[in-house]
Amino acid sequence: MDRLELNQHISQRYNADLEDLRTELLEMGGLVQEQVRDSIAAIGQADAELARRVIAVEDDVDAREVELDEHCTSILVRRQPAASDLRMVLAVSKITRDLERMGDEANKVAKMALALVEDGGNGQGYVELRHLGNSVLRMVDDMLNAFARFDVNTAMAVAKEDSNVDREYKSATRELITYMMEDPRSISRVMNVMWALRAIERIGDHTKNIAEHIIYLVRGLDVRHTSVSEMERQVNASDPQVR
Amino acid sequence: MDRLELNQHISQRYNADLEDLRTELLEMGGLVQEQVRDSIAAIGQADAELARRVIAVEDDVDAREVELDEHCTSILVRRQPAASDLRMVLAVSKITRDLERMGDEANKVAKMALALVEDGGNGQGYVELRHLGNSVLRMVDDMLNAFARFDVNTAMAVAKEDSNVDREYKSATRELITYMMEDPRSISRVMNVMWALRAIERIGDHTKNIAEHIIYLVRGLDVRHTSVSEMERQVNASDPQVR
Repeated sequence: MDRLELNQHISQRYNADLEDLRTELLEMGGLVQEQVRDSIAAIGQADAELARRVIAVEDDVDAREVELDEHCTSILVRRQPAASDLRMVLAVSKITRDLERMGDEANKVAKMALALVEDGGNGQGYVELRHLGNSVLRMVDDMLNAFARFDVNTAMAVAKEDSNVDREYKSATRELITYMMEDPRSISRVMNVMWALRAIERIGDHTKNIAEHIIYLVRGLDVRHTSVSEMERQVNASDPQVR
Repeated sequence: MDRLELNQHISQRYNADLEDLRTELLEMGGLVQEQVRDSIAAIGQADAELARRVIAVEDDVDAREVELDEHCTSILVRRQPAASDLRMVLAVSKITRDLERMGDEANKVAKMALALVEDGGNGQGYVELRHLGNSVLRMVDDMLNAFARFDVNTAMAVAKEDSNVDREYKSATRELITYMMEDPRSISRVMNVMWALRAIERIGDHTKNIAEHIIYLVRGLDVRHTSVSEMERQVNASDPQVR
């Protein structure tokens, strides 16, 4: 496991500030993870009540984004952090944003769940949805663990996993188009499943972004827009245990 | 017009740093604006060459995001900015991210343009696409002007305009579903138009986000997740010429 050496500060309050930031982010992450899980379950189980619960949480997630960002700005102003502390603050601010977007997408999934419950219907595309949903939920779970333990290897695995999710998503989309062609009366219904799939795939993208922010946070590497293999090379080259 | 009072610094170099940041952001903005415009034109004119040009620019946009972000971090480390200077640095870092996403979405539109050119076909949904495309292009144009002149009123107008874009998008989507039902053989073709529409609508969302960052930058107000009317109230209440 990687160890992020946050600088040790004479000020107890400063250490507590950084620790609070980490705790608040993990709380927000847990909340969003629940939203994602519930929104996918709401479709699979045609559970309107669960879908409404997901939608009810959105304001809370939004409020946490704003609070966490204010917290980051306030640390920048009061502490003028440097090195790994600065990376921590900047990474948290970015991760927060991606988490909020994930909540947004979970909300869309929940809305599609409501539309699908209202529609009744035969559950075409649900297998694909459950499959993609499970893959993305695993990514989200791993990503939160990677952040909690500042674990670069797990973050790398999350980034890799996103390519599989993209492939699954594409094949699911093709499947759904076939359903629509075979039964044009199902088009608006299948389109709702399509939008839900799309939102789940986007959740995977944001999870990958967060994995990249974690790598930046721990190793100081900006691996955005690099291929997974190049990312892996850079991460290995920067491993303090190898150098 | 609003005036952002960036603090005047004894260090000439510090002033130049902040000015460079502004110039670099405007350059990146201009590049993304061109991508958006060209990608929409590529569909309307079935121009594969133009679509490929949009796709070729992506690496440049990605590189600029990373550079601008490094520039922001380096100013934080060397200058430890406060007040409006800090807001400038934080806002630029966020705006950069939204601009990069807009470039991503323009890329998706360009890919759909290529798929549509290959497909031939009759241009169903093109009227809707041109309509939505023009609305979003206006938003992008206004947003860049708002940033260039630190103009809160124009930023507010951009945020308002996004609601219209969302409405237009929804009605276009309904129209496209009708086309698919009437002619099931057109489904995969119309789906490509649907994805392009979706990407254009997302460009509008990111443009609205940037408008919110501009309001934060100039007035220090965090107006994310507030309704447009509440946003307007807060902006008016913070107007230095009214207070």
